[in-house]
Amino acid sequence: MPGYPVLPEGLAYGGDYNPEQWPEEVWHDDVRLMREAGVNLVSLGIFNWSLLEPAEGEYDFGRLDRILDLLAASGIKADLATPTSSPPVWFRNRYPASRLVGREGQVLAGGSRHSFCPSSPDYAAASARIAGRLAERYADHPATAMWHVHNEYGWANPQCYCETSAGAFRDWLRDRHGDVAELNTAWGTTFWGLTYGSLEEVEPPRISPVGQLTALQLDFARFSVEAHIANFRREREAIRAHSDLPVTTNFMIPNCKPMDYWRWAGEVDVVSNDHYLDSGRADAHIELAMAADLTRSVAGGRPWMIMEHSTGAVNWQPRNLAKRPGEMRRNSLAHVARGSDSVLFFQWRASRYGAEKFHSAMLPHAGTDSALWREVVDLGADLGRLAGVRGSLVEAEVAVVWDWESYWAVELEWRPSVDVRFRERVEAYYAALWREHVTVDFVHPSADISGYRVVVAPSAYLLTEAAGKNLHRYVESGGHLVVSFFSGIVDENDAIHPGAHPGALRDVLGLWVEEFHPLPEGATVRLGAGGTSGGTGGTGRIWSERVRPAGARAVQDFADGPDAGHPAITRHDLGAGTAWYAATALDPRDLLRQVLDHAGVTRPRDLPDTLEAVRRGAHVFLINHDDRPATAHDVTGTGVLDGRQYDGEVIVPPGGVIVVATTPRRNP
Amino acid sequence: MPGYPVLPEGLAYGGDYNPEQWPEEVWHDDVRLMREAGVNLVSLGIFNWSLLEPAEGEYDFGRLDRILDLLAASGIKADLATPTSSPPVWFRNRYPASRLVGREGQVLAGGSRHSFCPSSPDYAAASARIAGRLAERYADHPATAMWHVHNEYGWANPQCYCETSAGAFRDWLRDRHGDVAELNTAWGTTFWGLTYGSLEEVEPPRISPVGQLTALQLDFARFSVEAHIANFRREREAIRAHSDLPVTTNFMIPNCKPMDYWRWAGEVDVVSNDHYLDSGRADAHIELAMAADLTRSVAGGRPWMIMEHSTGAVNWQPRNLAKRPGEMRRNSLAHVARGSDSVLFFQWRASRYGAEKFHSAMLPHAGTDSALWREVVDLGADLGRLAGVRGSLVEAEVAVVWDWESYWAVELEWRPSVDVRFRERVEAYYAALWREHVTVDFVHPSADISGYRVVVAPSAYLLTEAAGKNLHRYVESGGHLVVSFFSGIVDENDAIHPGAHPGALRDVLGLWVEEFHPLPEGATVRLGAGGTSGGTGGTGRIWSERVRPAGARAVQDFADGPDAGHPAITRHDLGAGTAWYAATALDPRDLLRQVLDHAGVTRPRDLPDTLEAVRRGAHVFLINHDDRPATAHDVTGTGVLDGRQYDGEVIVPPGGVIVVATTPRRNP
Amino acid sequence: MPGYPVLPEGLAYGGDYNPEQWPEEVWHDDVRLMREAGVNLVSLGIFNWSLLEPAEGEYDFGRLDRILDLLAASGIKADLATPTSSPPVWFRNRYPASRLVGREGQVLAGGSRHSFCPSSPDYAAASARIAGRLAERYADHPATAMWHVHNEYGWANPQCYCETSAGAFRDWLRDRHGDVAELNTAWGTTFWGLTYGSLEEVEPPRISPVGQLTALQLDFARFSVEAHIANFRREREAIRAHSDLPVTTNFMIPNCKPMDYWRWAGEVDVVSNDHYLDSGRADAHIELAMAADLTRSVAGGRPWMIMEHSTGAVNWQPRNLAKRPGEMRRNSLAHVARGSDSVLFFQWRASRYGAEKFHSAMLPHAGTDSALWREVVDLGADLGRLAGVRGSLVEAEVAVVWDWESYWAVELEWRPSVDVRFRERVEAYYAALWREHVTVDFVHPSADISGYRVVVAPSAYLLTEAAGKNLHRYVESGGHLVVSFFSGIVDENDAIHPGAHPGALRDVLGLWVEEFHPLPEGATVRLGAGGTSGGTGGTGRIWSERVRPAGARAVQDFADGPDAGHPAITRHDLGAGTAWYAATALDPRDLLRQVLDHAGVTRPRDLPDTLEAVRRGAHVFLINHDDRPATAHDVTGTGVLDGRQYDGEVIVPPGGVIVVATTPRRNP
Repeated sequence: MPGYPVLPEGLAYGGDYNPEQWPEEVWHDDVRLMREAGVNLVSLGIFNWSLLEPAEGEYDFGRLDRILDLLAASGIKADLATPTSSPPVWFRNRYPASRLVGREGQVLAGGSRHSFCPSSPDYAAASARIAGRLAERYADHPATAMWHVHNEYGWANPQCYCETSAGAFRDWLRDRHGDVAELNTAWGTTFWGLTYGSLEEVEPPRISPVGQLTALQLDFARFSVEAHIANFRREREAIRAHSDLPVTTNFMIPNCKPMDYWRWAGEVDVVSNDHYLDSGRADAHIELAMAADLTRSVAGGRPWMIMEHSTGAVNWQPRNLAKRPGEMRRNSLAHVARGSDSVLFFQWRASRYGAEKFHSAMLPHAGTDSALWREVVDLGADLGRLAGVRGSLVEAEVAVVWDWESYWAVELEWRPSVDVRFRERVEAYYAALWREHVTVDFVHPSADISGYRVVVAPSAYLLTEAAGKNLHRYVESGGHLVVSFFSGIVDENDAIHPGAHPGALRDVLGLWVEEFHPLPEGATVRLGAGGTSGGTGGTGRIWSERVRPAGARAVQDFADGPDAGHPAITRHDLGAGTAWYAATALDPRDLLRQVLDHAGVTRPRDLPDTLEAVRRGAHVFLINHDDRPATAHDVTGTGVLDGRQYDGEVIVPPGGVIVVATTPRRNP
Repeated sequence: MPGYPVLPEGLAYGGDYNPEQWPEEVWHDDVRLMREAGVNLVSLGIFNWSLLEPAEGEYDFGRLDRILDLLAASGIKADLATPTSSPPVWFRNRYPASRLVGREGQVLAGGSRHSFCPSSPDYAAASARIAGRLAERYADHPATAMWHVHNEYGWANPQCYCETSAGAFRDWLRDRHGDVAELNTAWGTTFWGLTYGSLEEVEPPRISPVGQLTALQLDFARFSVEAHIANFRREREAIRAHSDLPVTTNFMIPNCKPMDYWRWAGEVDVVSNDHYLDSGRADAHIELAMAADLTRSVAGGRPWMIMEHSTGAVNWQPRNLAKRPGEMRRNSLAHVARGSDSVLFFQWRASRYGAEKFHSAMLPHAGTDSALWREVVDLGADLGRLAGVRGSLVEAEVAVVWDWESYWAVELEWRPSVDVRFRERVEAYYAALWREHVTVDFVHPSADISGYRVVVAPSAYLLTEAAGKNLHRYVESGGHLVVSFFSGIVDENDAIHPGAHPGALRDVLGLWVEEFHPLPEGATVRLGAGGTSGGTGGTGRIWSERVRPAGARAVQDFADGPDAGHPAITRHDLGAGTAWYAATALDPRDLLRQVLDHAGVTRPRDLPDTLEAVRRGAHVFLINHDDRPATAHDVTGTGVLDGRQYDGEVIVPPGGVIVVATTPRRNP
Repeated sequence: MPGYPVLPEGLAYGGDYNPEQWPEEVWHDDVRLMREAGVNLVSLGIFNWSLLEPAEGEYDFGRLDRILDLLAASGIKADLATPTSSPPVWFRNRYPASRLVGREGQVLAGGSRHSFCPSSPDYAAASARIAGRLAERYADHPATAMWHVHNEYGWANPQCYCETSAGAFRDWLRDRHGDVAELNTAWGTTFWGLTYGSLEEVEPPRISPVGQLTALQLDFARFSVEAHIANFRREREAIRAHSDLPVTTNFMIPNCKPMDYWRWAGEVDVVSNDHYLDSGRADAHIELAMAADLTRSVAGGRPWMIMEHSTGAVNWQPRNLAKRPGEMRRNSLAHVARGSDSVLFFQWRASRYGAEKFHSAMLPHAGTDSALWREVVDLGADLGRLAGVRGSLVEAEVAVVWDWESYWAVELEWRPSVDVRFRERVEAYYAALWREHVTVDFVHPSADISGYRVVVAPSAYLLTEAAGKNLHRYVESGGHLVVSFFSGIVDENDAIHPGAHPGALRDVLGLWVEEFHPLPEGATVRLGAGGTSGGTGGTGRIWSERVRPAGARAVQDFADGPDAGHPAITRHDLGAGTAWYAATALDPRDLLRQVLDHAGVTRPRDLPDTLEAVRRGAHVFLINHDDRPATAHDVTGTGVLDGRQYDGEVIVPPGGVIVVATTPRRNP
């Protein structure tokens, strides 16, 4: 693939490096300590625009020259950034039309980052120009290893509601819908008499007295993603004119809801991602695993790079909990296990100034006499031992459907229940699979899914007719599909599919839904024995509904609630496959076990739930998230980190990680 | 009365019909199913402006012609709407000064409904013009039965803060107050030195650094109601030029706090109302009964129309619970029992598009093979059997004081306690009367109340001196008055009546209040024995106060709290009547029983609390809200729905409704 | 000192007087009742601007002439106010550039007070002009005793974000930082590439897409305080041109966070303060004591005036609880005990109009037949008996560090934990000292603290290097310092001090911190035995951290949590003194007792926690906040209020106050 591998050998180790925040004498100390820690790659210059171009068209590359030379002399490579996520103050003042405008019409201030309109032509010109200048100057510098365009596109300025954006949105609508009549049809503007006479009449979805056209909101979200992508492309091409090194931009999967990374996936030479733990969550490591699997999936299964994560606490959560001993190592190796060829952090050295000064770093305020620094050094050594992992692939037999458009759509206003949240169900199904030690890919619902034994669609509210047919073909051809409630309801314009719910999935599931029965806050329904297979109880939350089988058979019925005696879980045998449906928010573990067994998906035997077990190529990663030792079986080979030989049984110490280079290959 | 009855016979049955959302082939299916369900009236064209007038001054009535002809051919009448609640997008763009502006100065967007300034002269002209055009064209169409002006005035745009509104507000102030000196006096502008030098200096109550003149806020609320009424009048007169059919607009009693429906009452030929259950409330059916009684009272006791309610779930609550089996029927017949000559729904056919697509309908997404559709058909049959109810009246011996101005005033900022809410006490007293099977009217405090045995004022914070005298005369002449705390405190300008609280009620209650003692959040006080009558305990919430009797005697004292040993409930014998006072938020059931007994208000004997019993004309409606059978006594006559004869005892099945045409007349 | 004493003899008693809200016939009633209550000082004319200057440059002093003459004739003095906290409506309309603008750009409306831009030159001119006119006219009026400039500066308009303010801010930055290079260095603008090219590019910290430069926010807060002070100075000088009477403005210590009263302290001739109880707090009387001690400290230890407090409920809290019997007296005498030479209330007579009409007053709506009025009269008599207290001083051996800049800084966004709040720790330490009956002064961290035996720094997040050295010198010279966690972290620009935390305090505390460990919401850690002294348990909340002693020794260790086995409390013997450190949010009582004992701070023996005991000069105030009698020992002298002689033992009745004029002097 273009631009892979980034480094001549081994995994990349390092982080964001902001030497401009420090006097030059500190730089030498930095480089010395980087070498001590085994750092071989730093992301450089992310916030340098105002230093590189202190006034419009005036450039000063001296500082960057010096730091790059210093890195080159030390054998450390640079992931060289374009500084365009934080335009200089002069830009904002010289081009006031480029200012970011909020949904209520407020003009957002500077003194911060990401404060620009993504559709601004002035921004487009200026950002491409500085990117081109950097590439021209440093394409052939010996330290330059890759290009880091911008930083976290769309994080703080996902949408802009200014007049420039409005005009660009109308142009985009013309491309998407052709003319106003087609737009009116697609958006269903006969509702509330919102028919447009011309595309010129369309406004962005600024704050309105009551609920707005949801199709307008979805299209504005799509347009906004593409506005950011257009900015990326412009910078990428400016770089391409001078350099063939790989170009990336750091994604924020999955914690930047407005960015549809399926659309972004094809734009970068190598996928890179920023991921931060929600430190208050007991299952934060499962959310990390999900993020890593989703990132790998966005990368099309190819190796990717963790571009930023943290050595300890972040600074933007209400309570920024530090990592426990060993947690940074487990986090880092979990990313590697799931396909990352790097372990990179925000940031190298903790800042003294600004909004992020309480964010952890590889080199903390406390300096090198600290447990954190010692863990950083040890991790560098571990990664050296894992050089052989580089480039190897993770394979999955199970896929989970993930669609950002459905994420947006299901959380718009005026849905049946505010408790129906996209990630609630996706995480519930993902966590159950994680605890079953099943590695999953994520897939777009229209993707080629024929290679998976099982496909799970936990929250596919928005599902096009074509995607519905894709799932139908999959099952007919022998696939096994699991669908959770409130899926297949609307098309790409948030219009309900004709006929009974779930319009896009009625045929494949062999059922239709007579009426939704959202539950009161906190209420539950019991599942009982019932149907053809006989269920074994369990509880549903959030939702109940009246399922009317039409080909499917009940696996389990509701025991109480508004649908007592009616199906809660169904199964439909269709062609060579099966389609399963859960009509409430249940703990999906039992259901998934049934389906996995039915589909012949084997899992490692006798593993505790809390032992993460992932195979990447010939390497089996065993990560113990419990405070008791955990034993894995049937693993034979060499412990890469500990140098021990294993033949069958591997005891992973509390909080520890063991990586086994297996021979011969077995399931983990 | 003008425009009554709307239909040649029987009760109206149907709902909002939006055929423009569907291809014409669906219309024939619609009409066929309407006939199957017994539908005889549909509200048509509510959101049609952009279709009828696709560009300013260009009209296209073809579609509406066709659907009206189809309805006429099928014997279904139209409640023909003016489409002015949702101006076309071209209007907004052509007349930017007509845009709605929020309290913080933000301009509200389109892509929604109600997004216009109610004081816009451009809106006034355009809305009257389209109303006139419709009336001109369809006044004599055989399907046209009545006119439905606009839709839910003031729901989403109750107030506008733009400069046009500011100017109109100043004109209105001139009419109300004469000159600036009188306004300064009325508003008490010496407070905080807020004296105006001229009326031109007055701004709407836009967002301010701290609390604003409350009199300004009240007057702006009044002005805003009248701005909407002026728009209604303009359309009504434009229709009147062509048609003598009855004109209505659908109110939203009581869930549109900004609209003072006492002011609206005289404007319409027939009162119609939209009411939706708060589906999460266990006592939602009592709130429905209150809404119906209040609507009938706004209608001056005459029959009215439920213009919109729902067959099942709505879409705008956090969790939109479906109705349980039989609930739609109970709801519908409760409206009829309390004076409605219609059962109409939003909406006929569930939408596929826009903000309301998850709102229930008579014809659900699931189609006719559904319990909901079967209930709709059955209800149509029930209503056919109830044709004889049409036009009959409900009589009440008890009245409850309801004043929107007091509702607004008591919930402005900086009152003694945020727990003192208008509806909290009104609903507490109403619910106690409902459970006593006492049908009530609602009255404005200045209305003629001489015909009632008992008048209850649960939350009359704002009470003019004249209204206070009205209540005084009522008691002196033999009436029995019950007043709850924090009533009679301020006049129409939110100025405290001179002297001790409650200034407007000191004389009639025979007491004054030395000091308010709002309770901490969640705290309670106990009521004990005490006073002349001896109380029997109970608990108060929210409020305590030091009552100083001056003619009244204590019925019950506080047993603890800041006023332990002082009166909690008092009685004042005045002239031929009595005036009772409750100085805390108590469960009013015991107090009301005392007063009802004292006043000679009889109630049906031995009825369970959960059996709703209402007499309308010769018909007794018995609605069982419990899941056990309920027995009523002393009811003799013919069961209209079930065809059975009753002589004394009527057993109402769980969740069921029995309507008895009584002979001879007895109390229910 | 200039302007002291204000009155010829005794303590001042009275309140805000707004006769303009009432007809003149009421004024005579007012004066009669004032005399009955012993009132000798009223604050007059606070909201009179629109009456005194009804149009620009047109004056009408008639009403004020008459009321001053009436007061003079009755022997009541006036604290004559400039009315500039509420500019007339004409001013706002004539000078629209003077309007207050919010952080999101919204223009704040009138119909309220404080609605002006503090940097407006038009406001500056108009406010100085009216102040001068008043002084010119009334400087020699026999009723005039002092000047009350403005009212509660900065309460509702602490900051303005308009363009005028932006310009003034840039001028202020030039004065503070010199040039843009120095500003860039001070603010650390290399962070996120926020470097300014010129001072003209700086914007106020208007709403931004994400966190802003915290140094910008701090400087804007400083600038805004000084904008208000400049307005005060302008008025003061306009008065000085005509009058030598003392000038004050009423502070709002400590409940107006944006106002840095250390900066204000030197501006007024006599410090005056407004203080209102948070009536829902069980320990509201301790917060009052803290406010009084802090006010006295701002006054440099000199007598001060309580300018406003309340006789009963306020009106702006969610639930405005009335005061219990005796509470107003206890509150008032607590202020006197802690240095106030006045007892003044908002307000004399309860208003009928506007936003504050439910605020209590000396003369309530209920009139004179009320417990509240009787308490007012009794309090007047008490104050007469306390005339000898006037001018005497309160002495403290213990000081608590309080710095508004640290208050602001620690509560900016993106700190380690939202639970770390400035007042949380200050109040915890203050309350423990209060319960130990230790009277404290508050000090700025750079102040001369050499005279105190113990200095406590409970929340000194922002601490300059110089302040750190000040504390170091203090300890070396024999002082005893107690510091709570997250102190000494940043400098005046919110930049982290170089090296490990706590940079400004590492040396004096003899330790450094390796990593912060904020606790999850609601979590606790236990303290165990450990260290050299051996602890006795206890619990920490909010925070834990890894302390690395470097000279200090552990007094107590954490028993569990992220730092189990590491120090929770340390002690550092340095020079002639000691420095103690608490690494979690503990109940500081035990720690403080150790330090007080070590430092030789004696406390009265055997007093219940709830008996407030304060010595002012020769007078000992004993205030019993419990509902049981409380006994004090070792007090000898004359009971000033009760006329009794005490020799050793004093029994204070429940809720009562005893003031003893001691002979000879002993500790209370």
